Amino acid sequence: MTTTTFAYHQLFAFAERVFLAMGCPEADATLATEALLAADLRGVDSHGVARLSGYVRLWEAGRINARPRVGIVHETPSTATVDGDGGLGLVVGPRAMRIALQKAEVAGTGWVAVRNSNHFGIAGYHAMLALAQDMIGIALTNASPLVAPTHSLDRLLGTNPIAVAMPAGEQPDFVLDMATTTAANGKLEIAQRQNKPLPEGWAQDAEGQSSTDANAVKNGGALRPLGGATGSHKGYGLGAVVDILSGVLSGANYGPWVPPFVAFLPLPTDPVGQGLGHFFGAMRVDAFRPADEFKAHLDNWITTFRAAKAVPGERVLIPGDPERETAATRLLDGIPLLEAVVRDLEATGAKFGVKLG
Amino acid sequence: MTTTTFAYHQLFAFAERVFLAMGCPEADATLATEALLAADLRGVDSHGVARLSGYVRLWEAGRINARPRVGIVHETPSTATVDGDGGLGLVVGPRAMRIALQKAEVAGTGWVAVRNSNHFGIAGYHAMLALAQDMIGIALTNASPLVAPTHSLDRLLGTNPIAVAMPAGEQPDFVLDMATTTAANGKLEIAQRQNKPLPEGWAQDAEGQSSTDANAVKNGGALRPLGGATGSHKGYGLGAVVDILSGVLSGANYGPWVPPFVAFLPLPTDPVGQGLGHFFGAMRVDAFRPADEFKAHLDNWITTFRAAKAVPGERVLIPGDPERETAATRLLDGIPLLEAVVRDLEATGAKFGVKLG
Repeated sequence: MTTTTFAYHQLFAFAERVFLAMGCPEADATLATEALLAADLRGVDSHGVARLSGYVRLWEAGRINARPRVGIVHETPSTATVDGDGGLGLVVGPRAMRIALQKAEVAGTGWVAVRNSNHFGIAGYHAMLALAQDMIGIALTNASPLVAPTHSLDRLLGTNPIAVAMPAGEQPDFVLDMATTTAANGKLEIAQRQNKPLPEGWAQDAEGQSSTDANAVKNGGALRPLGGATGSHKGYGLGAVVDILSGVLSGANYGPWVPPFVAFLPLPTDPVGQGLGHFFGAMRVDAFRPADEFKAHLDNWITTFRAAKAVPGERVLIPGDPERETAATRLLDGIPLLEAVVRDLEATGAKFGVKLG
Repeated sequence: MTTTTFAYHQLFAFAERVFLAMGCPEADATLATEALLAADLRGVDSHGVARLSGYVRLWEAGRINARPRVGIVHETPSTATVDGDGGLGLVVGPRAMRIALQKAEVAGTGWVAVRNSNHFGIAGYHAMLALAQDMIGIALTNASPLVAPTHSLDRLLGTNPIAVAMPAGEQPDFVLDMATTTAANGKLEIAQRQNKPLPEGWAQDAEGQSSTDANAVKNGGALRPLGGATGSHKGYGLGAVVDILSGVLSGANYGPWVPPFVAFLPLPTDPVGQGLGHFFGAMRVDAFRPADEFKAHLDNWITTFRAAKAVPGERVLIPGDPERETAATRLLDGIPLLEAVVRDLEATGAKFGVKLG
């Protein structure tokens, strides 16, 4: 497939101007762009600028508030519940995470449940905001229902990711960022474009049978939870925890009531909460042991695992390795975008008189 | 296979007397027995009285301190680091969880990292201690290395479970308790006894190839992380997070240094910390929203998921359903034990002049 490569700063300037044109305050436009482009840098192409037009359409449909008043509605020394006022998750997320970091400064840890938000890009970006302060960062979010619990024909969960970032010393930081499904929806979209069958275990058809059809989800099927044929109840359980902490604990929607990302689908008429939900955590490492000790041992953990004997032709990776390597390359060499994405960005820019590149 | 059925109170009295004979103070013996038997009640037979002789052998080998002074070595308003003084994890675990609950009373949440402990039975038991106080409970532990990270030939992780318990209202509580492997080691032992092949994806052989041999792990292979052929990096990532929070953050051993459960294996000669590690969390529901609101919505979540359309002959379960149903049956009808387990218990009792039944 044909791609065109753009420098990070080109895409940054473009997306920032689009967010400004939507009416975002300057600081919010910058924040949203940084969060959005973290996906493109780290190789999670499905969650980056390819989604910019989706955010714009949600805003056009009146489902995103470009000037939200993000506020704390309830708090204790180590917790807060935050109302995102319908804002971009790309803005609400980092603001809520900042509250978690501030709580952790004082109480050792900070935990923030967020309601009335929207999709926040990649979970890893938010978790990594903790690293600079020698904290462990955690980010969860619920998402539009595309996933069938084990044995279910109904789609009741999103891909509900879990991200955990932990600060290392000399070694690169440990960054886990994973959907609780076997494969993220973006990987299905890639298989659709390439007209290739899916690996076994990613999806099921409308009758609940395992399917390798890349269009299975579109045709009444569903994504399957992480775990494969004999373990999907575990992926379902993890996705459920993410949904309950993000949605039920915060007062957001949950399960089948989570608002869709695509503006052409109607909102549920009987919402059980407000908007979409996230859950953030920050733990000061030195609330448990001196930070230098922790980091030295995490370095030892990382080097031990990286040095493991591997099957021929492979190596044992540390969570975050592939994304970090992609980011290093793309910062230097640029970010390749599919032609369809480029055309979509141009059309989005044209709405606001903003040019790409 | 032949089994003999024992009443819960029979096994309770027996195990309690064994712990007393080991020198445990009375309150500790009761606590350890309750934690241990929670596994038998809930149908996790591999982690219950079948392991009593294993704990005794660790004590005989001087690797378990029957009279530990469990203490806080560092704390902040919402955190504590606890030294288990080499005690039974079955005792250290609930004590550390109590500290987490006390912290949460005051600070909204409580988080306790534990070092210098031993195996603590089923993670779910500890997480569920939060429920009576309308708190969300979390329990993690690292464990003896039996699991190979993705692509690894070396066994570097334990089955490192994750348990999350959340209080419902009218509905039974939500209790997720899962190993971060596709199957727990106990399931392999069952397959060995029955001389049956394993499902694909549970284990690998000494060359790192997928194996259905029930003896694969014994013969130089390893358990595989949760996720199946295309997703095991996610199970590996989750197991790694559990290991780092339980071991690296607390000052316990981690990765290949975690002490073995079986007393006949030598301890690592170059420990990187003290004993085995756990990590506990408690979050007051009303630190985020009123408890009655949360519980009503969790009830709605549960009934919605339970009512999902299912593939013919199946139903959609809520995490904790199977274990709760087993516990209800076993409290009434007793706990069936395999003959080999009964003989092992009798031999263990004979060491201390304690009779079974």
